[in-house]
Amino acid sequence: MPTYVCFSLADRFSADQKHRIAEKITAAHSEEMNAPRYLVQVMFQSLPAEECFIGGQLAPTGQIWITGDVRAGRTSEQKQKLMDRIVKAVAQIADCPLDNLWIYLNELPPENMVEFGHVLPVPGRENEWLNGLPSALRERLAGLERELPAGDA
Amino acid sequence: MPTYVCFSLADRFSADQKHRIAEKITAAHSEEMNAPRYLVQVMFQSLPAEECFIGGQLAPTGQIWITGDVRAGRTSEQKQKLMDRIVKAVAQIADCPLDNLWIYLNELPPENMVEFGHVLPVPGRENEWLNGLPSALRERLAGLERELPAGDA
Amino acid sequence: MPTYVCFSLADRFSADQKHRIAEKITAAHSEEMNAPRYLVQVMFQSLPAEECFIGGQLAPTGQIWITGDVRAGRTSEQKQKLMDRIVKAVAQIADCPLDNLWIYLNELPPENMVEFGHVLPVPGRENEWLNGLPSALRERLAGLERELPAGDA
Repeated sequence: MPTYVCFSLADRFSADQKHRIAEKITAAHSEEMNAPRYLVQVMFQSLPAEECFIGGQLAPTGQIWITGDVRAGRTSEQKQKLMDRIVKAVAQIADCPLDNLWIYLNELPPENMVEFGHVLPVPGRENEWLNGLPSALRERLAGLERELPAGDA
Repeated sequence: MPTYVCFSLADRFSADQKHRIAEKITAAHSEEMNAPRYLVQVMFQSLPAEECFIGGQLAPTGQIWITGDVRAGRTSEQKQKLMDRIVKAVAQIADCPLDNLWIYLNELPPENMVEFGHVLPVPGRENEWLNGLPSALRERLAGLERELPAGDA
Repeated sequence: MPTYVCFSLADRFSADQKHRIAEKITAAHSEEMNAPRYLVQVMFQSLPAEECFIGGQLAPTGQIWITGDVRAGRTSEQKQKLMDRIVKAVAQIADCPLDNLWIYLNELPPENMVEFGHVLPVPGRENEWLNGLPSALRERLAGLERELPAGDA
């Protein structure tokens, strides 16, 4: 957990913007939800501009919709902070007004989620889970815990 | 809320059909769920025909799958009426039998949903929510409440 | 119910692999969840390799993410067995390590799901549901219940 899918229109994001958005979502999720970075997946899908409607009319081409499938078990306050950070970070990277941002969080029981071939632990039990993995995988995941060199990301 | 994603195969919908489907879903949701039109997003994704299977065999190319992420808090009766309207309207526009239609509704707590950069209200509190938005955004959303000129839409 | 969407990167699956994966997921779901094969839809989406990040870094191109929208009402044990079978079967067909596999199950109330134009029954009531369908559709669905000729599938 989690997986975020970021839908946007008309190929608006450069490779660099995608990398920076993935980093910001990963950091926000990791810090607000107290979760390891290696459990955070971020995908991008770009749709043709004429494939998205709001209120029955073509959406503005700036429209961004981010869905997150996350483990259940967090407080309302945690979720609000997380969504607020994502709205602001993505709007800044995309250079668009905040009102282009739509975010939905879908909460799943950890027992319904497999990552890296293994069913996820409940929030707070990640270290025990990590210690039970094969050593090569454990080392790979440990590598993902290291933050990227800074810059804007 | 909500966002509907309409999956179909082999580019079967024209731009006009997409517009009419978006309008019908928007109207059905707005009227059956008592929600403003401006909160309704409809997206389209077309997959190659060989990317969809039912019962382990390639699906008929007419297959249409619509997923809706909607705010929780409606009755079974409301949801049935909504899905029934969408089935009939989309089958008519797509000129296909009703049994090509699959629809799933995924209910989310309003506090898990951000639209236009703002966390959504519970059903019934939309006007207070709207009045708390910046005035330029409020005017844009008010414009989306006006129905399209008729015709089939 | 259910619909599984299998996300992978860089067009890694051949048409034959997709067919075999669809068959394995259909069989696993049908057997572990006691559900008819004709209710199982499997879709594939391939993303460009640079559209997927884990831990803020580009994901390995072998990454596979499978989401399943399934009817609620099964035990933890059923879900674990199902996910375990899917992990192993897909890894074998994809010829990749188990840790490339991510699977999420999203449980929906049957009353929120329409398939073949009809609201689904609760688990266990499929036969009554089937008997209530128009006869042409019933025969088509009965045809989907027959297993494919074997081979690896």
